[in-house]
Amino acid sequence: MPNWLLPEYIEDILPAEAYHIEMLRRSMIDHLMVHGYRLVSPPLIEFVESLLSGSGSDMDLQMFKVIDQLSGRMMGLRADMTPQVARIDAHLLNCGGVTRLCYANSVLHTVPSGLTQTREPLQIGAEIYGHQGLESDLEIQRLMIRCLELSGVNKLHIDLGHVAVFRGIIKNANLSQNLEDELFAILQAKDTTALKSVCKVLKKSTRDALLLLPELYGDKIILQEAKKRLPPHKEIALALEQLDRVGKTLKPLVETLAFDLADLRGYHYHTGVVFAAYSNGCSNAIALGGRYDEIGKSYGRARPATGFSMDLRELSRLIEGKSYPMGIRAPYLKNDKDLELKINQLRNEGHIVIVELPDQAEITSGCDRQLVLKKGEWIVEEL
Amino acid sequence: MPNWLLPEYIEDILPAEAYHIEMLRRSMIDHLMVHGYRLVSPPLIEFVESLLSGSGSDMDLQMFKVIDQLSGRMMGLRADMTPQVARIDAHLLNCGGVTRLCYANSVLHTVPSGLTQTREPLQIGAEIYGHQGLESDLEIQRLMIRCLELSGVNKLHIDLGHVAVFRGIIKNANLSQNLEDELFAILQAKDTTALKSVCKVLKKSTRDALLLLPELYGDKIILQEAKKRLPPHKEIALALEQLDRVGKTLKPLVETLAFDLADLRGYHYHTGVVFAAYSNGCSNAIALGGRYDEIGKSYGRARPATGFSMDLRELSRLIEGKSYPMGIRAPYLKNDKDLELKINQLRNEGHIVIVELPDQAEITSGCDRQLVLKKGEWIVEEL
Repeated sequence: MPNWLLPEYIEDILPAEAYHIEMLRRSMIDHLMVHGYRLVSPPLIEFVESLLSGSGSDMDLQMFKVIDQLSGRMMGLRADMTPQVARIDAHLLNCGGVTRLCYANSVLHTVPSGLTQTREPLQIGAEIYGHQGLESDLEIQRLMIRCLELSGVNKLHIDLGHVAVFRGIIKNANLSQNLEDELFAILQAKDTTALKSVCKVLKKSTRDALLLLPELYGDKIILQEAKKRLPPHKEIALALEQLDRVGKTLKPLVETLAFDLADLRGYHYHTGVVFAAYSNGCSNAIALGGRYDEIGKSYGRARPATGFSMDLRELSRLIEGKSYPMGIRAPYLKNDKDLELKINQLRNEGHIVIVELPDQAEITSGCDRQLVLKKGEWIVEEL
Repeated sequence: MPNWLLPEYIEDILPAEAYHIEMLRRSMIDHLMVHGYRLVSPPLIEFVESLLSGSGSDMDLQMFKVIDQLSGRMMGLRADMTPQVARIDAHLLNCGGVTRLCYANSVLHTVPSGLTQTREPLQIGAEIYGHQGLESDLEIQRLMIRCLELSGVNKLHIDLGHVAVFRGIIKNANLSQNLEDELFAILQAKDTTALKSVCKVLKKSTRDALLLLPELYGDKIILQEAKKRLPPHKEIALALEQLDRVGKTLKPLVETLAFDLADLRGYHYHTGVVFAAYSNGCSNAIALGGRYDEIGKSYGRARPATGFSMDLRELSRLIEGKSYPMGIRAPYLKNDKDLELKINQLRNEGHIVIVELPDQAEITSGCDRQLVLKKGEWIVEEL
């Protein structure tokens, strides 16, 4: 097998794409930073126990493992940066008030999470710690929408869900942990046949509620439907009220918006409103997020938290017509101070100037202009 | 053991440092790009054979390995990006002329390469492919020096060496590969006792030349000394001539410069002039590079190549007094259009504006100004 072949779902990013991703990354980090999100950069590799704290077995299977030669312990390559950033909030910054953090870096997955997806997403995201109210959820959601707009993605669709609806039904039914896990997995997979079969053993009110969930997808009418037909538990009523508020705020900002009360996708650690953004040309969600108030607990400090993340590679793939900026060709002349000055000036203005080297085999490509000497002056001329 | 403990030589980058590294990274990438170096981003993970192509066993030991669940083959986490970028030049871009590429991303090492060094360097570098002459070496060296200056490092010291000096002595002595490898390792470690002992079995001219190498460290006088006392092989004479030219060009650009003819440090694949930059406050080289004309061969296309790389983390550590930019605190007011407008305007100008959330436990930190309403107008006031 030729040694330049890459593993499946692993790719090089070549100049036009790399340039586009770099610019996207910068504009998003800048946008997050002016909103008060402080940049952090957790390591690529940590002990497995740290990376798995507060998350489920999905993450364990997605994570490459290696032995630490210095301690003999097992380390994992991060598959998600959210738990790492929560660890930084809980342990390192240790601030009592509201903390806003952002990050942008590669994560690795043992297997691709979708048919078209890379095993090396470039995860960018933002998190707010230390605030319980819906205002922080709204700040995060607005920020996600604005970041997607900045990237050039338009006609956004947003799906909203709330983990407390399912949790409320389960909690009041006193189910075993095993049965809860099974129902969770079935609903995540939207497998209604399996749902019907498992629900048979449950009491009627629980069964009716669970079987109703997959139908509760659509516009704000389904919130009224849910209020009418789901059990009248306090946490469910609160969840529906929160969804209504979030829906009203975000609706004017996007093309379409829907509620999905069976949506338990995403992270195992969510506790409140969850959301996903979609766009034409991509069947997978292009950005995901939600509230997860418990994650810091395993690091010694449970803090209310809400955040979003997305994959810059996937996002960049949705944008068409990317190209690398063209340069200006310059001749190689030793000790021509005027030429040197002109080149420096052009570069300081942000132009790409490529000096041809002596005895080059081919003329420099990637240029649409050149520097020529006319009447004793170096000027830029179209090619 | 607490689950927030990180493995040795693995660290979080917290906001002040992360911000500094981000800005450093951007200014260097911009600098490389305006010089015509096109940005590429090879993957974190590849098949081991690809990553080891053209490099030695050092790299093999430095590389974490994992099994690819999709192919059953062994993959490595890159410990160096240079071979990856050479693969991109040789196979993907496949351009006949001169190609300039740059990159900036994390690499991982199984063990730290120095006492103070991280196992996760942030490697940034630039390479020229397809040009044999010393002009491309000089372009790369000047670029490296300028990048280091941009980062705020000053009082640079440059060490220059040339692999052909040692190779010339060995080639003309007809040594076994084993003996050559042993001598190489001994010279790399600058272990003169071992050198004396191994040299005993060699013929006098080879022995004298090898024993002389560790002494050939210093200013341009040692080039004359080398010319006089080393065997009169053509490749050695050419190497000394090249070192002289490079030294003359770089001397005015740095604080001090020395030649080191026993310097075989760095990569196993070097073939020509090699160089290293040092600065006060760091005993390790802060940037390294050299010519390596053979590396593309294993990917099907040997191309002349020269380049440099450095670790942005290490570099950032040398700079003192880093701080995160301070923000402007703004109150949370629903539907105050004037306030919203003012906040957007400030953020567009690049200011950090942090909106306080309702019922925050503590006042927002990290701000030195605030937005206040005075005579019906929102103005920024010092705190």
